[in-house]
Amino acid sequence: MEFDKIILMSFEEDMPNGDITTIATVDANALAEGDFRAKDDGVVCGIEIARRSFELSGGGVEYTPYVADGDFVKKGDIIAHVKGNARSILMGERTALNLMQRASGIATATKKAVTAVEAYSTRITDTRKTMPGLRLLDKYAVRIGGAVNHRFGLSDGILIKDNHIAASGSITNAVKKAKAYAPHTLKIEVETENLEQVAEALEAGADIIMLDNMNCEQMKKAVDFIAGRAVTEASGNMGERDLAEVAKTGVDLISIGALTHSVKALDISLKFKLI
Amino acid sequence: MEFDKIILMSFEEDMPNGDITTIATVDANALAEGDFRAKDDGVVCGIEIARRSFELSGGGVEYTPYVADGDFVKKGDIIAHVKGNARSILMGERTALNLMQRASGIATATKKAVTAVEAYSTRITDTRKTMPGLRLLDKYAVRIGGAVNHRFGLSDGILIKDNHIAASGSITNAVKKAKAYAPHTLKIEVETENLEQVAEALEAGADIIMLDNMNCEQMKKAVDFIAGRAVTEASGNMGERDLAEVAKTGVDLISIGALTHSVKALDISLKFKLI
Amino acid sequence: MEFDKIILMSFEEDMPNGDITTIATVDANALAEGDFRAKDDGVVCGIEIARRSFELSGGGVEYTPYVADGDFVKKGDIIAHVKGNARSILMGERTALNLMQRASGIATATKKAVTAVEAYSTRITDTRKTMPGLRLLDKYAVRIGGAVNHRFGLSDGILIKDNHIAASGSITNAVKKAKAYAPHTLKIEVETENLEQVAEALEAGADIIMLDNMNCEQMKKAVDFIAGRAVTEASGNMGERDLAEVAKTGVDLISIGALTHSVKALDISLKFKLI
Amino acid sequence: MEFDKIILMSFEEDMPNGDITTIATVDANALAEGDFRAKDDGVVCGIEIARRSFELSGGGVEYTPYVADGDFVKKGDIIAHVKGNARSILMGERTALNLMQRASGIATATKKAVTAVEAYSTRITDTRKTMPGLRLLDKYAVRIGGAVNHRFGLSDGILIKDNHIAASGSITNAVKKAKAYAPHTLKIEVETENLEQVAEALEAGADIIMLDNMNCEQMKKAVDFIAGRAVTEASGNMGERDLAEVAKTGVDLISIGALTHSVKALDISLKFKLI
Amino acid sequence: MEFDKIILMSFEEDMPNGDITTIATVDANALAEGDFRAKDDGVVCGIEIARRSFELSGGGVEYTPYVADGDFVKKGDIIAHVKGNARSILMGERTALNLMQRASGIATATKKAVTAVEAYSTRITDTRKTMPGLRLLDKYAVRIGGAVNHRFGLSDGILIKDNHIAASGSITNAVKKAKAYAPHTLKIEVETENLEQVAEALEAGADIIMLDNMNCEQMKKAVDFIAGRAVTEASGNMGERDLAEVAKTGVDLISIGALTHSVKALDISLKFKLI
Amino acid sequence: MEFDKIILMSFEEDMPNGDITTIATVDANALAEGDFRAKDDGVVCGIEIARRSFELSGGGVEYTPYVADGDFVKKGDIIAHVKGNARSILMGERTALNLMQRASGIATATKKAVTAVEAYSTRITDTRKTMPGLRLLDKYAVRIGGAVNHRFGLSDGILIKDNHIAASGSITNAVKKAKAYAPHTLKIEVETENLEQVAEALEAGADIIMLDNMNCEQMKKAVDFIAGRAVTEASGNMGERDLAEVAKTGVDLISIGALTHSVKALDISLKFKLI
Repeated sequence: MEFDKIILMSFEEDMPNGDITTIATVDANALAEGDFRAKDDGVVCGIEIARRSFELSGGGVEYTPYVADGDFVKKGDIIAHVKGNARSILMGERTALNLMQRASGIATATKKAVTAVEAYSTRITDTRKTMPGLRLLDKYAVRIGGAVNHRFGLSDGILIKDNHIAASGSITNAVKKAKAYAPHTLKIEVETENLEQVAEALEAGADIIMLDNMNCEQMKKAVDFIAGRAVTEASGNMGERDLAEVAKTGVDLISIGALTHSVKALDISLKFKLI
Repeated sequence: MEFDKIILMSFEEDMPNGDITTIATVDANALAEGDFRAKDDGVVCGIEIARRSFELSGGGVEYTPYVADGDFVKKGDIIAHVKGNARSILMGERTALNLMQRASGIATATKKAVTAVEAYSTRITDTRKTMPGLRLLDKYAVRIGGAVNHRFGLSDGILIKDNHIAASGSITNAVKKAKAYAPHTLKIEVETENLEQVAEALEAGADIIMLDNMNCEQMKKAVDFIAGRAVTEASGNMGERDLAEVAKTGVDLISIGALTHSVKALDISLKFKLI
Repeated sequence: MEFDKIILMSFEEDMPNGDITTIATVDANALAEGDFRAKDDGVVCGIEIARRSFELSGGGVEYTPYVADGDFVKKGDIIAHVKGNARSILMGERTALNLMQRASGIATATKKAVTAVEAYSTRITDTRKTMPGLRLLDKYAVRIGGAVNHRFGLSDGILIKDNHIAASGSITNAVKKAKAYAPHTLKIEVETENLEQVAEALEAGADIIMLDNMNCEQMKKAVDFIAGRAVTEASGNMGERDLAEVAKTGVDLISIGALTHSVKALDISLKFKLI
Repeated sequence: MEFDKIILMSFEEDMPNGDITTIATVDANALAEGDFRAKDDGVVCGIEIARRSFELSGGGVEYTPYVADGDFVKKGDIIAHVKGNARSILMGERTALNLMQRASGIATATKKAVTAVEAYSTRITDTRKTMPGLRLLDKYAVRIGGAVNHRFGLSDGILIKDNHIAASGSITNAVKKAKAYAPHTLKIEVETENLEQVAEALEAGADIIMLDNMNCEQMKKAVDFIAGRAVTEASGNMGERDLAEVAKTGVDLISIGALTHSVKALDISLKFKLI
Repeated sequence: MEFDKIILMSFEEDMPNGDITTIATVDANALAEGDFRAKDDGVVCGIEIARRSFELSGGGVEYTPYVADGDFVKKGDIIAHVKGNARSILMGERTALNLMQRASGIATATKKAVTAVEAYSTRITDTRKTMPGLRLLDKYAVRIGGAVNHRFGLSDGILIKDNHIAASGSITNAVKKAKAYAPHTLKIEVETENLEQVAEALEAGADIIMLDNMNCEQMKKAVDFIAGRAVTEASGNMGERDLAEVAKTGVDLISIGALTHSVKALDISLKFKLI
Repeated sequence: MEFDKIILMSFEEDMPNGDITTIATVDANALAEGDFRAKDDGVVCGIEIARRSFELSGGGVEYTPYVADGDFVKKGDIIAHVKGNARSILMGERTALNLMQRASGIATATKKAVTAVEAYSTRITDTRKTMPGLRLLDKYAVRIGGAVNHRFGLSDGILIKDNHIAASGSITNAVKKAKAYAPHTLKIEVETENLEQVAEALEAGADIIMLDNMNCEQMKKAVDFIAGRAVTEASGNMGERDLAEVAKTGVDLISIGALTHSVKALDISLKFKLI
C-alpha cells in the first residue's frame, strides 16, 4: 500500500525500542475497542491510512470505517470503530491520528477553497510546498478535498521561472530549450509577472502560463489576451486572496501553497476501553 | 548532521529523476547569488538546516547566515545569503525553504506561548503530535522557540493514560508495574482527570502528574494539593486556552499539541539572480 | 551525484566482504596507473559515472577523461586515464566498466537510430523497457545518444492503452477521466491501432496519439488525418523496422524499446600497471 | 523470496507516486485476465519472478504458469495466465515483463552456447559483467540456461590477474599469498597469457588456470601440458569465438561475458482484457 | 515484530546469494523435523525470535516451543520442535541459533547476578556496552534474566559523567544545565567518585547517584549519607566483584557491563532429519 | 570504509535523537584530549575502526594510534590518543570502545589458540557462529589474531552436512550434486563422523573433509587414511578441547565456534579531559 513507507517511518520514529508504558501495564492478550470521533467539522481524509496503521502494528485489529475519504463530518460524528489487541491499538493510535488529522486538515482547507470558486470553471491546485517525506499524503489529501494536483516534483513537470528565463536569455529561448530537452509528454509552463511576459510566453509556445503575484485586473487582462490559447494558473500567496474574485478573472487554475505548508489539523479523538 | 536524513528524503522525493526544467535551461556552470528574506515577522529556525541543504545539493554553494536560530526577524529582514552554482541553488531551494519555514513557524508559535506565561514559573512543552518523519525537526524547533521537549516517543518516557490504568486495575497498580519494568532513569507520569485520581497518583509515587482537560479551578486545586510533591503538567487543547490563566494555577508545565500538529509556516522567500 | 545509488549498490553486490584476491596480493599502499580504451567504435557515455566509481571506491584515485559523453570514439582510442591506489582501482574497475559499457552501448544504438532519421523532423524516444534499478542510467544514455526521453514511469505521464480504454468504455471517456484526474501539467497520450481510434482520440482531445503496430501506409494516413492537431508517436517493435521509412510518414516520434531492453555493450578495457 | 528486492526496487522506480493513468481510468474493483505469450522462440526464465511481481503488486492476482524455467517455448506459446484485479495487473505488468524478458534472453543465449559445446565435456560459465543490482537474476538465468556460475563477486573467489601478479612479484608469490590469506574453502585461480605462465601457475599450486585470450592452438598446448592437474578455463571475448572449436581443445570451462553484458531480451507480451 | 530487522540483517549477511549447498543437495520440496535441545544448563531466551527466524525464512515451518523465555533448562532438555520444508529449516537454523544462544547466554549470566543479590533489595541493571545493532536483543535478554534495563542510549537518559562535570565547571552547574535542557520526564543521574561529589550531587538535585569504582566501605558511607534522598547505582567492573557484598551496602542498583560485553553463549543444538 | 555500516548502525541505535546529556552540559566548541588505554593484556584489534568512529561522529577529531592491529599490549599501555571537539569525542566514544573491545577480545582468544598449535602445521579457523550484523568485524578480528577465515556464509562455500547427505541419499550423491551445481571456484567440504564416511567422502572427491566430534584417536586414523589427498578440518566444541593434542593428529585446520560466539571483551578505557 502506497502509504506503508510513511506509516513504518512513523512507527520507527515513535518507538525504536517499543512502547514501554504499554508493555509494563497492559497484558499482551488484553482486548480493547473504541471509536474515532470527529471533534470538529470537516472533510475526512485518511480512512484507509488509519486502517493500514493498525494492520502494520499487528495484533489483528478489526477496523470498521463509518465514513469514506471525502465525506464531510460534523463534531461528534463517529469516523471508525476499532476492536482488537489493546497493545496494538495503543501502538498504532498516534500514527493513525497524526496522519489522519493532517490529511483531513488539508482536505478540509482544500474543500473550502474549491467551494469558494465553485461558481466558476476555475480549479484549485497545490504546490511543492509540502512537508518532506509526506508529499504523497499531502497531494492525496488535496485530491480528496476536490482539487487537482500540480506536478509532483521537479522530475515530472516543466515550470520555467524567472531564474530559468534569465539563464536562457529570454522566455523564448527557455521554452525552446525545454521543448528540446524534456519528455514530449510534459506540458511547458512559464511563470510570468506582466503582460509583456505573457505575450512572449504565448508566442514561444507555452502550454501553461502562470500569472504570478498579479492583481485581479492584470490577471483579467492576461486571461483575455491569452484567450484559451494556453492554460492559465494564478499563483502567489493565493491563501490570503479572495478566491472567488480571482476565479472571476477566468483563470483556469489557482495554486495555493498554504493548503499544505500551513495545515490546521482536523481534531479527531480515539477513545477506547478494554473489553 | 542530524537532519541529513530528512534533507536527503526530501531531495529523493522532489527529484527522483533530476530537475528537468533546470537541466534544460540553466548551464551546468552558471553561477547565481541571492538572499533569503523574511516576508513576515517571527522567530527564525533552521539556519543550519538550510546550509546543509545546499551542501548536500552539491556545487559548492556558499551560504552566509545573517541571523541565528532563535533570532526574531521582521518582515523584509535578510536571513542569509547564498552564492554559487545556479543549478545547485535551484535544486536545494525548495527543500531549504520547506524545512526552514515549518521550523520557523513552530518556533514562532512556541515563542508566543512561552511569552504568554513568562510572568510565571510555568514552562511550555510539546507532544507526540508531530509529523511522521519530522519529529526531530519539530522538537528542535520547539526548543529554539524557548520551550522544553516532552518525551521523544513511546520508548523513552512513561506516560500512564486511562487505558493503561484500566488495564492495570488502578493507578496504583499501573505505577507499580511501570516502576518494576521501566528503566530507573525515567520518571513516571500519570494522566489524571480529577482530584481523586490526582491523590491516588501522588500516593502511588508518580513523579509527574498530568492534569488533563481540567478547568483552571480544578487545576488550581490539584496543584495546591500536590504541593510540590510531583511535577504538574496541564494538558488538553491547550492551544485554545488562555495560557496565562493556566499558568496562574501554578502548574509546572503546559503541553500544547497544536505547536506541531497545526503549523503556520513562516513566510520566507529566496530571491536570487544569475551572476 | 545522481548515479551514486547505482554505484554503491554495485559495490555492495560485488564485494560484500571485500576483494579478497586484491587484499591478499596487492600492498595497501601500492600505486597504479592506466587507460580506459575503446575496443570498438561507438558513442561514449558514462565518463562521469566512471569518475564517480573511483571516487566512491576511495583511495584518492585521479581520473582524467580524454573525451566527453556523446563523443564518438574509434577502436583503440583512449577514453580516460586513472592513477592512484592500486587496490581502489581494482575494486572500482568492474563497476565503472559495467556501467560505462552499458551506457555507451545504449548511446551508440540510439545514435544509430537518430542518424537513420536525421533527414526528417522525426525524433527518437525510449520506453519503460529498461532494467530495474537502472532506468536513470538507461534514460540518460538515450539522451546522450541524441534522442529524447519518453515519460520516466507510471507516475509522470498519461498513456491510455487498450485496457484503460476498455475499462472506461471508450477513448472519449478515458481521456475525459484522465483530464479530470491528472495534473494539468501532463499531456494526454492515447494508444491507437487504427484510423477510427485515431479519429476518436483526436476528437476527445488527446495531446499525443500513439500509432501502435501500424504499417507505414496506415501511419501515413493517420499523420495526414491528424494534420498537426496532436503529436504523433510510432510504436511497436520499432527496433526491427526501417526507421527512415517510418520517419517518412511524418510521425513526430518513434519509440524504440530495444534501445534499452536489448543492449549490446560497447567493449571498453581498462589496462593498468603498478607504478 | 530472493528476487523481492529487485522487484520492489523496480516498482519504486516505475511508480514513486502511483500509476496515474490507471487510477484515473480503471475502477478500483475492475477484474481482468490474460496471457503471457512468447513472441519469439527461446528458453523461458523468470516464471516465479513474474508470479512474485503480481503478488507484490497486491490485489490477489492469480497466476498460473504453463511452463517452467528452462523450458523451450516457440513463438505463440502461452507462458502463463493471470487473472485478478485489473489495477494490480497493470502495475505489475512492466516489472514482470522487463525481468522475465531479460532473464529469458540470458537463458536463451546461454542454452545456445551450452548446445554448441555439448559434444564435449566442456562447460559454459559466466563472469562479473552483469548489470549492477541484477547479478542475482543474471546468474540465475545462466544456470537455467544450463551453464554453471563462476564466482559471484570479489568476496567469494580468488582470481589472480596480471596486476595481482605484478604486485606480488610473480605468480608463485601471488599464489602463496592467496593461500595464506584466503579461506581454505576457495580454490585459487590464476589468469595466464602464455605457456610459461601456465607452467608457473601449475607449479605454484593453482587449482584453476585461466587461459586468457589464447588462440586454440595455444590453448590445446596448455591443456595438454596441464594434463588434468588443474581445472582449465578459456576466457577473452568468447562471445565472438567458435565455441566448439574452443571446446575441442579440451578446456574444462569457457567463460563468456557477453551472456550477461549484451543481452537480447526474449520478446514476451501480456495481453489481457477486463472481465 | 521488533526483532525482524536483526533477523533479516542476519539472513542478508549469511546468504546474499542463497545457500548453495542446500540448493544443490536438498530437494525443494523435502520435509524435515527435529528438536532444539539445550547442551548446557541455563535460562532460555529467544523462543519467539527463533520462531520468527523460521517464519521469515519461508516455507511454512511449524515451530512448537516447549519452554518459554525465562525458563531454566537443564542439559538435554528439548526447547522447541520444528517441522517443515527442509531448505527453510537449513537456511533459518544458524540465525535462530546465533540469536537464541547469545540471548540465553545473557539471560543466564543475568539470572546468576540477580540470584546473587536476591537477599537484598538491590536490583541488577545493564549498560550501553552492548553489541552494535543488537542492543534491542541484548537489553531484552537482560530483562528476561530478571534484571531491569538502564537507559537505552544517549537520547533517552541523562548521565552526567566526569567530562560533563568538567565542561560545566561543577556538578552543580551540570545538573542545572541538564534540568533546563532535558525533557522533564527524565531523571538526572550523576557519576561520582567520592563522598564530596556525592554530597554535591545530592545538593544539586540529582535523582540518581552513580557510585563509580568505589570499594564497599565507601559505597556504604555514600548510601548512608544519601539516606534515600536519591537512587543509588554501583558501577565499575561489577562483573568481577562480589555482588552480594556490594548489595549489602544498600545500593539500589548494580550495573554490570559484562552482562552484554562478554557473553558466553548458552550451547543449544538443532538436530533434525528428513521425513 | 568497510566497517562504516556497522559504525553508523551503532550511532543510530545509540542516539536516534542526539546525546542529550552532552548537548546540555558541554559547549559546542569545547575541546578535549585523552588516551585509549589497555586495562588488561591482549591483542589489539580495531585501531582503524576507532579512528573511523571519530571521523563519522564529525568535529574533526585527531586520532593518533600508538599500536597497530595485531600488536600485543599489556595492561596500562596507551593504544591511541584522541584530540578534538569534546562533543564528538563523547558521541563516538562508546561505539569505538564497544567495537574495539569485542574485536580485541576475539583477536586475543584467537591468538591464544594459534599459539597453542604453533608447534604444528595446523591452522586455526572460525565458523558462522558470529553475531548478526557483525560477521565482517568478527572475521576480521580472527584474521588479526593469526587464524584464517572459513567460508563467509552460505553463499560462498560448500559444506555438506548430515542432512544434506540424507537428502541426497549418500555422500557420493551429495558431492556429485554439489560439483554439478556449485561454482567451480569453490572447494567441496564434507562433514564426517566416522572413518567409513571419511572413506566415502574421499572417494567421492571431497576437497576438504571435516572430522566432526571425533576423539583424537579417531582423528589420527582419519588423517593417516586421507594421507594428504584432502584437506582435513577438526570440528565440534573445539573451544573446550586441548588444541595441541588435536593438532598433534596432523589435521590441517581446527575450527572453533567459541572464538566468536562467546567473546570476552578486552578491557579498554578512554580517559580524556577538556582542554
